[in-house]
Amino acid sequence: MNIEMIRAAYARGQGVVRRTPLLSSPFLDEIAGRKVFVKAECLQHTGSFKFRGGWSALSGMEADKRAKGVIAFSSGNHAQGVALAAKMHGTSSVVIMPEDAPRVKIENTKALGAEVVLYDRGSEDRDVIGAKLSTERGLTLIKPFDDPLVIAGQGTCGLEIAEQAAETGIAQAEVITCCGGGGLTSGISMALEADAPTFNVRTAEPVGFDDVARSLSAGAIQRNNALTGSICDAIITPQPGDLTFPIMKRLCGAGFAVSEDEVLRAMGLAFERLRVVIEPGGAVALAAALFHGNDLTSDTVIVTASGGNVDKAVFARALATLE
Amino acid sequence: MNIEMIRAAYARGQGVVRRTPLLSSPFLDEIAGRKVFVKAECLQHTGSFKFRGGWSALSGMEADKRAKGVIAFSSGNHAQGVALAAKMHGTSSVVIMPEDAPRVKIENTKALGAEVVLYDRGSEDRDVIGAKLSTERGLTLIKPFDDPLVIAGQGTCGLEIAEQAAETGIAQAEVITCCGGGGLTSGISMALEADAPTFNVRTAEPVGFDDVARSLSAGAIQRNNALTGSICDAIITPQPGDLTFPIMKRLCGAGFAVSEDEVLRAMGLAFERLRVVIEPGGAVALAAALFHGNDLTSDTVIVTASGGNVDKAVFARALATLE
Repeated sequence: MNIEMIRAAYARGQGVVRRTPLLSSPFLDEIAGRKVFVKAECLQHTGSFKFRGGWSALSGMEADKRAKGVIAFSSGNHAQGVALAAKMHGTSSVVIMPEDAPRVKIENTKALGAEVVLYDRGSEDRDVIGAKLSTERGLTLIKPFDDPLVIAGQGTCGLEIAEQAAETGIAQAEVITCCGGGGLTSGISMALEADAPTFNVRTAEPVGFDDVARSLSAGAIQRNNALTGSICDAIITPQPGDLTFPIMKRLCGAGFAVSEDEVLRAMGLAFERLRVVIEPGGAVALAAALFHGNDLTSDTVIVTASGGNVDKAVFARALATLE
Repeated sequence: MNIEMIRAAYARGQGVVRRTPLLSSPFLDEIAGRKVFVKAECLQHTGSFKFRGGWSALSGMEADKRAKGVIAFSSGNHAQGVALAAKMHGTSSVVIMPEDAPRVKIENTKALGAEVVLYDRGSEDRDVIGAKLSTERGLTLIKPFDDPLVIAGQGTCGLEIAEQAAETGIAQAEVITCCGGGGLTSGISMALEADAPTFNVRTAEPVGFDDVARSLSAGAIQRNNALTGSICDAIITPQPGDLTFPIMKRLCGAGFAVSEDEVLRAMGLAFERLRVVIEPGGAVALAAALFHGNDLTSDTVIVTASGGNVDKAVFARALATLE
């Protein structure tokens, strides 16, 4: 991984990947006690930054491999990012999803052009199904984060942050990312190391699922004890990636762990003050900026709002936190 | 009014007024049966396009007049746009609001730096109060739409639409605006006449409050019969403006009138598919694009989502329209 891969991914995405806005509100600044800027990746195609990685992977593949199609395992944002990127490249995608995944997610992934293969979590092994399909059809697996082209794609978000911060006159900032496997965080960290080297990247995760924060603290990869039970489903991964962790270890400061209540309040405030829809996993960084000010040192904080795919029942809980 | 005034307002707003994104979703295209692009002015400072007009008015005034302060009548988006623009210019603003206005709107307007003067709708005349304050303090009145600097500011939204349409490869489109007094509509119409002359501008209003559509149809200004009873409060005005109507008459096609149910469904779909929060008055154009396709002739429609200041109870009604 190097910065030139990120710049190449950026060039490949010109005119396709959305340059998402950097939003702010004096009301959020007041709550945080400092300037807060929100990189609204919830407004990216398919509603999350994952389209950046999907587009980078598809556009960066050799043409003959791409023509045979791609495959991904995901019931969430990565699936949709890969499906749309494949469709826009005129090739096929297969997404392997558990058959008990929400019907709307299955339908959405199909509507974005993917062939959805369902499996029974109790009796079938998705890796076996995926390996069989890949071999039979010559499909290329696109991993959700531990893949250089995917990391390069997510890093384009960091290049935009550096550009937009310069346009806004921000000379120094802490940049808080919503962190799952570390694709977005490692990509942004490398981009800012090159283009905004005074900025410090820090991660945010839900309390109880803070494998990255603990890994950064320990200096070695730590696992989560549980993989279910959080509303922040989009960013719950077993552990940081083998490619992403060394980058984060080199470039990131201490991570934040935020509560479910803080996440819901951040979502509510984003509705009220920024007029954007953020999903729980995409609100952990904003929650850290708003409610963990004692652990911040900069007078300016930039956070990723990394996705906005949330069902209305969960969103109603966020609205209920507003006065 | 001429295009050079809009270009001048655009230049004065560089680095301050947000260039809001042009959003889209294949799911919305499917519903509409054509390409739909949404100019997300709900993401503008203060949550509506009104900041454009406020900024234009403040930045375009003579410095000595500006230093004495400005005054506006509004309990809504215009008040907030003027208040923030005045604060950012280092001058004072007075906003005259009815004392029964929602507490949160009064507090927000104060928080944006305005001095709020409350009056009793039953026993006091706001024009008398405003005239007295203006005379005593030398304040300049900033009207909500029938003011050349305000129209010029709203027109900057149209310059951006022309630029973004060109970047996106859109050669022809119908552009539907959410229309109250016609400041946004007339400004956009003049901007597109100059920079995208193949585009046709059309207005959208709520059923029962379609004074602009009826005025356009009649060729002369018509009034609304009622001024209350719509959830689209932001765009309910007695009649089109004396400055704005001749421009709209010259440049706009037939207007749309959409139902409350259509507005709420459009808001729900914007939540689900675009991840933005739109207020009822800001959703009428999207509702027309999605649900009045029989009255459209282009394969591409661009709509303004002109504001996002909506309380959670109304937003919950929009969420309830989703499956």
